Amino acid sequence: MYYVGIDVGGMSLKAGVVDESGKILHKGSCPTGVERGPRPVVLDMAHLAVRVAEESGIGMANIEAIGVGIPGIIDPKTGIVPHCINLHWEQVPMIEWMREVVDKPIYADNDATVAGLAEAVAGVSAGTKNSIFLTLGTGVGGGIVLDGKAFSGSHGVASEIGHMIVQVDGELCNCGNRGCWERYVSATAIILNGRKAARKHPDGALAKTVNGDLEAITAKHVMDLAKQGDPDCLAIFDEYVKYLCVGISNLVCLWDPEVVALGGGVSYTGEFLLNAVRERLPQYILFKSRPYCRVELAKLGNDAGIVGAAMLGRR
Amino acid sequence: MYYVGIDVGGMSLKAGVVDESGKILHKGSCPTGVERGPRPVVLDMAHLAVRVAEESGIGMANIEAIGVGIPGIIDPKTGIVPHCINLHWEQVPMIEWMREVVDKPIYADNDATVAGLAEAVAGVSAGTKNSIFLTLGTGVGGGIVLDGKAFSGSHGVASEIGHMIVQVDGELCNCGNRGCWERYVSATAIILNGRKAARKHPDGALAKTVNGDLEAITAKHVMDLAKQGDPDCLAIFDEYVKYLCVGISNLVCLWDPEVVALGGGVSYTGEFLLNAVRERLPQYILFKSRPYCRVELAKLGNDAGIVGAAMLGRR
Repeated sequence: MYYVGIDVGGMSLKAGVVDESGKILHKGSCPTGVERGPRPVVLDMAHLAVRVAEESGIGMANIEAIGVGIPGIIDPKTGIVPHCINLHWEQVPMIEWMREVVDKPIYADNDATVAGLAEAVAGVSAGTKNSIFLTLGTGVGGGIVLDGKAFSGSHGVASEIGHMIVQVDGELCNCGNRGCWERYVSATAIILNGRKAARKHPDGALAKTVNGDLEAITAKHVMDLAKQGDPDCLAIFDEYVKYLCVGISNLVCLWDPEVVALGGGVSYTGEFLLNAVRERLPQYILFKSRPYCRVELAKLGNDAGIVGAAMLGRR
Repeated sequence: MYYVGIDVGGMSLKAGVVDESGKILHKGSCPTGVERGPRPVVLDMAHLAVRVAEESGIGMANIEAIGVGIPGIIDPKTGIVPHCINLHWEQVPMIEWMREVVDKPIYADNDATVAGLAEAVAGVSAGTKNSIFLTLGTGVGGGIVLDGKAFSGSHGVASEIGHMIVQVDGELCNCGNRGCWERYVSATAIILNGRKAARKHPDGALAKTVNGDLEAITAKHVMDLAKQGDPDCLAIFDEYVKYLCVGISNLVCLWDPEVVALGGGVSYTGEFLLNAVRERLPQYILFKSRPYCRVELAKLGNDAGIVGAAMLGRR
């Protein structure tokens, strides 16, 4: 059985032909062209699926289903994308439009959910039934996999883990609430804290790294300097790890998964982050003497979007 | 098909014969006698199951399975209760001991989980696939029902919703962490806030209600005075509703259930609480223009323990 997975990003559309085991056999991409409005983008998604299927030599006739990962939510009943901020979509009948081009079963879900499914099929959570994948990027998303299937809840919003409130009356989030988890554990949070520290210590290592241009600070700058022992960046790192562990312990209280996989840009901090989380997490775990989830680094990187989207068709 | 459900409490063991639809046909009880140690209690549970089955006229031979709700967690693989603070149990092989008396399939789960299952079968969440039941009592427990089955996670601890941290570095919880949800939305939290207010305003309505004996303040005193418009108690109520809504919105971000059912002592505040929660909740919901969970008052009250435990056998 073969599937096509489509990873819809703000900059590019990526698609691949994926086999039953989650292996990509062939892939292709094209620019998204968000500015054209939703319909040309959706039609391009369908055409790209056909193109990669034909180019792969497998052919559309042998494709079981098409899966799509979108940077937003989709109504599981109607196939309509109600909002998608990154794509400037409102009430887009995505699946209906794609069906004008391809007569195949089409499934879609949130991109973090889909990446979580990819990790559960072919990545770090393979072999488990119940796992949660975290994208620690500009924002924070979650991909919940339950009994080997992507879980999006009853109304398609169960991947909004980043908006779990961990600090009532805390930092203001883009969503309008205060104290959302993503306000503390996204790359954005690291950057904001980095700027604050560099402003406070203009002679410090972080300010020097960017030649005083605080707007140029990235999460990687902060994490790299933390690894080197810079006290300001270590303090930011410690606070980051603390909030990350609090949120993971909340996932344990509510989901009790087998694996929590760290993905997204911040996860490229690697073992330095992983070890710190593993060391601190037990402090927050309720039944720490009992078995609880493994925390791991996600494995599939950028391919997770294509693989997971394709695996939506494997039902 | 008939089942026996056993509700294990610190004071009494309750058991009932329950039919497929969740209706109790006959019930009985006996004192728990925690002080005797775990083995006599567990054997009494099994004997009580036999007694109610025989008394009901249905007879043990016609009982499909026995279900048990315990005020703690149970290892789903071994049937061992690793800890149960209320019963002073440690590493109790509960199911093995019960099997010495009754040769039937025996299932067990956390009491809040079981009550949630009861509400999903025969109560306010009937007809839904994905619901969360909250016990707003001395502590706060959660009963998650997914696809019509009790969900306890991969290690049996997914009902520990009360220990979700909503206020990093917040109020100290019994579990050793700070800022757990139950520290803000349990009856205990209301009582502590009531005492604080009464201490501050010794001439206020709350202090007068208990004739100055602040130890006598109950959550009901505070809620009743809030209903009557007492400003101190209204302030406690408002804060309570705020934290309850924050936590429910976290459940929406992570679980996205169809129903959140409010149970436990505080839920007897009734419509006054329900209406306040329904009014305030949208403020915290991420996609508030989209459908999200209904919030309801639980319906089955004290019988939920027996019904839900019995329904564990219906698999």
